[in-house]
Amino acid sequence: MTVELISVGTELLLGNIVNTNANYLSQKCAELGYSLYYQITVGDNEGRLCEVLKSALERSDVVILTGGLGPTQDDMTKEAVAKVYNRELVMDEPSRERIASYFTFRNKNNNSDSGVTNNNWKQALKISDAIVVENDNGTAPGYIVEAEGKATILLPGPPNEMLPMFENHIYPYLKKKQNKVFLSNMVKICGIGESKAETDILDLIEGQTNPTIAPYAKSGEVHFRVTAAADSNKEAEELLRPVVEELFHRFNENIYTTDEQETLEDVVVKLLHQKNYTLATAESCTGGLLTGRLVNVSGVSDVIKEGFITYSNEAKIKYLGVQPTTLETYGAVSSQTAEEMVRGAAKTSSSDTALAITGIAGPDGGTEDKPVGLVYIACLTNDKVTVKEYRMKGNRQKIRDQSVIYALDLLRRNLL
Amino acid sequence: MTVELISVGTELLLGNIVNTNANYLSQKCAELGYSLYYQITVGDNEGRLCEVLKSALERSDVVILTGGLGPTQDDMTKEAVAKVYNRELVMDEPSRERIASYFTFRNKNNNSDSGVTNNNWKQALKISDAIVVENDNGTAPGYIVEAEGKATILLPGPPNEMLPMFENHIYPYLKKKQNKVFLSNMVKICGIGESKAETDILDLIEGQTNPTIAPYAKSGEVHFRVTAAADSNKEAEELLRPVVEELFHRFNENIYTTDEQETLEDVVVKLLHQKNYTLATAESCTGGLLTGRLVNVSGVSDVIKEGFITYSNEAKIKYLGVQPTTLETYGAVSSQTAEEMVRGAAKTSSSDTALAITGIAGPDGGTEDKPVGLVYIACLTNDKVTVKEYRMKGNRQKIRDQSVIYALDLLRRNLL
Repeated sequence: MTVELISVGTELLLGNIVNTNANYLSQKCAELGYSLYYQITVGDNEGRLCEVLKSALERSDVVILTGGLGPTQDDMTKEAVAKVYNRELVMDEPSRERIASYFTFRNKNNNSDSGVTNNNWKQALKISDAIVVENDNGTAPGYIVEAEGKATILLPGPPNEMLPMFENHIYPYLKKKQNKVFLSNMVKICGIGESKAETDILDLIEGQTNPTIAPYAKSGEVHFRVTAAADSNKEAEELLRPVVEELFHRFNENIYTTDEQETLEDVVVKLLHQKNYTLATAESCTGGLLTGRLVNVSGVSDVIKEGFITYSNEAKIKYLGVQPTTLETYGAVSSQTAEEMVRGAAKTSSSDTALAITGIAGPDGGTEDKPVGLVYIACLTNDKVTVKEYRMKGNRQKIRDQSVIYALDLLRRNLL
Repeated sequence: MTVELISVGTELLLGNIVNTNANYLSQKCAELGYSLYYQITVGDNEGRLCEVLKSALERSDVVILTGGLGPTQDDMTKEAVAKVYNRELVMDEPSRERIASYFTFRNKNNNSDSGVTNNNWKQALKISDAIVVENDNGTAPGYIVEAEGKATILLPGPPNEMLPMFENHIYPYLKKKQNKVFLSNMVKICGIGESKAETDILDLIEGQTNPTIAPYAKSGEVHFRVTAAADSNKEAEELLRPVVEELFHRFNENIYTTDEQETLEDVVVKLLHQKNYTLATAESCTGGLLTGRLVNVSGVSDVIKEGFITYSNEAKIKYLGVQPTTLETYGAVSSQTAEEMVRGAAKTSSSDTALAITGIAGPDGGTEDKPVGLVYIACLTNDKVTVKEYRMKGNRQKIRDQSVIYALDLLRRNLL
């Protein structure tokens, strides 16, 4: 089975946004065992859209279009697909009702002046005989148009709408079209660099046929996707198992999950739940990002009751009981301050565990002694404090993101 | 002048890397006033590469290819271009010398004796009559092939080699080919939905010629790029000014900046700096995301001293002085609680301004009365508190992200 991606949007051609949709969909198609030979990006222009869709349909079994389903004049993906398929646009009643209720809900007691404009109703039109795919995160539905054994799939452009729609509706649809069974495990590793991780399993990567092993580097993490193709689920599982076991043998507790959906913060919250522990946080340079990430986990309210963003020295003294002499002698960015922060956070909130981060995220504030990228992370579990010193590279954003990951990983290891 | 991008690399088709090169080059081409209608990604496959290059040369003046210039068998961009142009590959002596000296240097510093392999010499071959472009950060040179008034430009794939090569050599080359000046303003709007914003200026969008107006929707925001083309900078500025003024006339204080680089949090921190105000935050459902975003702004430490993540009722009482009776009577997600949170945050931290967020981000915790998406945001400025109720749609992540934007925007408006 071959698939082709067409990303639609003038904002992509002008470089205003990075095409992360193409990246995500390429990964997913590879996972499903589809062969992808072309990714095309065109603007919101009917002529060019029709032209690229026609060539795509000539050479591929499935064409996935993203973008251009919005309510404005500019958005014309649906119109172009209808033209190529020689079909009409007809009103889809369920879509019309959904749009009406979406706006009613939003405006109720919202003091909002954004009513349903005429162009919103355009989103209720569907290509005749197309399958309408619900959008749980916006007003533009997706569509699947089938003809002559081929399919054209239309998805909205905003990633927060496209991703769940693909995950929930399109992925199962594509999986059913594919006659081989593809099974994969995502082996997620934290605490080892990408090249080190790859070197450690170079023999496996070079010798791979089925299962395949594909590395993905994420900021502060390394993921390996292990995929087996077979005629049945059972056969695929049997192919997968020994390779995943070998990865565990080599990486041990550096692996935090093999579940595609599970994040590092999910694992940390799960471990805290299992032990019936609560967690307090004290953040300086990360300014709330660590807690903000933990709070992503639904049901986290059982383990996190409160967090402290102590950007100033005064706040570190007032809320966490850091000693002024510690700050004077060692500075705010020091292992001593990190330790007092973590003890203070645990004590004042009566929590079982605590994390504290203090560092220099830059671009200013670095010295020769304490350069930008110097970060101390303290972790308290069972009244014992571990403090780690990190020297990170990169810009402000990267240093803060990495600090969050290292803090989560430090707590995870201490909980194991 | 039209330009077309061809990204070459199987790793892009498998989704192993995000195509940031296409994004960067698109931005640069827009800046230079080149019209870009197609971006294509293909794998390292000679047949498909020749096919897409031929169609690109038929419809565009300049074709830029990135990737596939490496030393391995896989890399065949140069070979494909030579084939399409019907030219030979010939040894380029300066390139040959550079490669030899690169390896000598590397081995000397590394105590390594890894020699130049035959593959490496492949990188010294150039397409006959091509302009060779030096690579200061790697072994693969770039090339410019000219014929019949058109140009094909070959650049290496790794961004750390491609970017400086483009910046230093290709940008000036393209600029010389282009005789117009292009200037643009990014008008960024918060507090109006995308379709409402477009409807408000539909006459301007429909009547546009020069300057052009292009809308971009971001979560919770709308951006319009206004671009003028002229023979001189001064003339472009004169074309731009009345259109931007008209947008200000229509959107007033909904516009928070016209600067491409400036974010909503930048503007808020700038306003706080101007008034010499400090800010305290109290976050429940956003769990630190608001403060985390503010702390993105370098130099924010003058305005933010501390923040409170009060996820539990106990923490709201203990740190912010919320009355237990308020929580009992109205609930944690209520305008009354939001107001007490914001007053408490300002008081305990002795801050001039404060923001508080309490809401139901879901997926659990919603009731008929208080559904998922119900969020109260309170803002304190000059001892006056404004509380707004919002009813948002979307998943947990979207509700939390929008809450952060609405909170920033509320403070911005109160500071104006």
